[in-house]
Amino acid sequence: MSHSTNNISKGVSVVSEHVCQQIMGREAAFKAVENVFSAMAKNTAYNFPVIREAIGHEDALYGFKSGFDRDGLVLGLKSGGYWPGNSQRELTNHQSTVILFDPDTGKLKSLVGGNYLTAVRTAASSAVSIAHLARKDAKVLGMVGAGHQSSFQLRAAVEQRNFEKVVAWNKNPENLVSLAAVCEELGLPFESVTREQLCEQADVIITITSAFEALLEKEWIKPGTHLACMGTDTKGKQEIDANLFTIATVFTDELAQSITIGEAQHAIAAGLIEEADIAPIGEVINGSTLGRISDDEITLFDGTGVGLQDLAVASVAAELAEDNGLATYFHF
Amino acid sequence: MSHSTNNISKGVSVVSEHVCQQIMGREAAFKAVENVFSAMAKNTAYNFPVIREAIGHEDALYGFKSGFDRDGLVLGLKSGGYWPGNSQRELTNHQSTVILFDPDTGKLKSLVGGNYLTAVRTAASSAVSIAHLARKDAKVLGMVGAGHQSSFQLRAAVEQRNFEKVVAWNKNPENLVSLAAVCEELGLPFESVTREQLCEQADVIITITSAFEALLEKEWIKPGTHLACMGTDTKGKQEIDANLFTIATVFTDELAQSITIGEAQHAIAAGLIEEADIAPIGEVINGSTLGRISDDEITLFDGTGVGLQDLAVASVAAELAEDNGLATYFHF
Repeated sequence: MSHSTNNISKGVSVVSEHVCQQIMGREAAFKAVENVFSAMAKNTAYNFPVIREAIGHEDALYGFKSGFDRDGLVLGLKSGGYWPGNSQRELTNHQSTVILFDPDTGKLKSLVGGNYLTAVRTAASSAVSIAHLARKDAKVLGMVGAGHQSSFQLRAAVEQRNFEKVVAWNKNPENLVSLAAVCEELGLPFESVTREQLCEQADVIITITSAFEALLEKEWIKPGTHLACMGTDTKGKQEIDANLFTIATVFTDELAQSITIGEAQHAIAAGLIEEADIAPIGEVINGSTLGRISDDEITLFDGTGVGLQDLAVASVAAELAEDNGLATYFHF
Repeated sequence: MSHSTNNISKGVSVVSEHVCQQIMGREAAFKAVENVFSAMAKNTAYNFPVIREAIGHEDALYGFKSGFDRDGLVLGLKSGGYWPGNSQRELTNHQSTVILFDPDTGKLKSLVGGNYLTAVRTAASSAVSIAHLARKDAKVLGMVGAGHQSSFQLRAAVEQRNFEKVVAWNKNPENLVSLAAVCEELGLPFESVTREQLCEQADVIITITSAFEALLEKEWIKPGTHLACMGTDTKGKQEIDANLFTIATVFTDELAQSITIGEAQHAIAAGLIEEADIAPIGEVINGSTLGRISDDEITLFDGTGVGLQDLAVASVAAELAEDNGLATYFHF
């Protein structure tokens, strides 16, 4: 990266939320997340322990995810959390900032807005799982959940297969309008359905909710389905029937998170599966573990969200912004 | 803090290393550190778990210390570490950056250079211990260690008592010239001594080394001495004889760190003392625990260094810089 030295001499680069939205495409995010999952499986990139604290002020949850990619030379953290009162101040409840350091010297290198990138990297994660694990002939995409992240998920997912239809369910069906609008824009038929209907029709299912109990039953999932469970990132959260883990082939972004705070936590706690039953998706990307081996197989990706994903997309966003004259700089 | 809202609307403030050196006085640092030790003892301020990782690149140790002061409304982290190759690049080996967030919204608030402030807050910590624990009539200050931080320690310490002389020891005695120069500037007699001589003469001893074995023996320490052990912040490091803990009254900045990575780790591991034998210095500041109760007592402060100290001094530095027009701003 011949331009790095130049950029460092300019000072610390600042890449705003607005610039991230302008510059960070889905393809670049997909590539960055796929690369970092691969590096994690090769142990050339690793996540540091996660800090997550209820700070006792404004009901906020605050913390950091951090890590180091030794090959990509990306070092830093995403700091931020959830401030439930923000929406009343016309601010996003989730507030994230990515802070990158020069791994050669420890000096501050870049500040990158993390709100948009968090949605983009999470969508890239399920998209990577679809690319590597879903049946090639998948035709119907099922969306469970209609929050802020769901349209990011939808846009990234439909680029991975030749989907002909989207079916969706949300606790409050009236909130499905935003997903319906995306489908209209993309020229894809859209249908609001029950959860059972969704499982009957969908070849690929993305769950992206804040649920604390199973929304999808094991018996509803048809053979050949790929599920990307993206909502569970905390102890207690749950989106799907833990029994589904006994018949699905299970993959994850990071094993340690999957079994403790991911969707797999319940199947592990109930003794339905063991840690060895879950494979890092990076091994599938690297070819050291098989992905889907039959058209009837149910594949399940437990996407827990790791700091290295944040660092990877932020690093790419910073380079793009710097190279395109969209970063600002300050000396420190 | 009526100006906070104004400053937030200006954007994120940047306070450089250079500005920190201009603006952050020893008195303000002392007050900030004393306040936060007090708040920690009242449980209105707390440190989050420390992240510290050997990253496997440039022999660097990287990590962060973080926390929240609920009364002072200071939230954030100090990120950085130790890059042993930096000195060859004309950079400081220790590289630190303090990052403050608005605890009401989670938005990035200030970036403050952390290198100078780390030295200042560590010096303030031993100074607070001297102010609260040393004999009022202490006359001789003993300095063990002559590295970068030692002159900060010396300058802060001599302001706490009417010291009439400084005695000092360092592994390489030729490196004592910088401490000697500070003493000359301050009009204080200075003497290079052996470790045993130092203990014979000194009423207050500050140890600020990177030693991995005891430099001072229990038998050398005279009654009435106050020791501030500031060098040990990692498993394995050690500056004084663990047996000294059996006869000293022991205080610390944070109990959890003292018994695991602080000077007390060895006495605890050897079963010489228990956690209950160590008192947080904040309780002395608050008056809920007695400090020194006799002129013959040996008091020992185990200064391990906590994230809240960094946040406290950085927050004061940011306010001073903002109020004096020395901060720069960027929008994010």
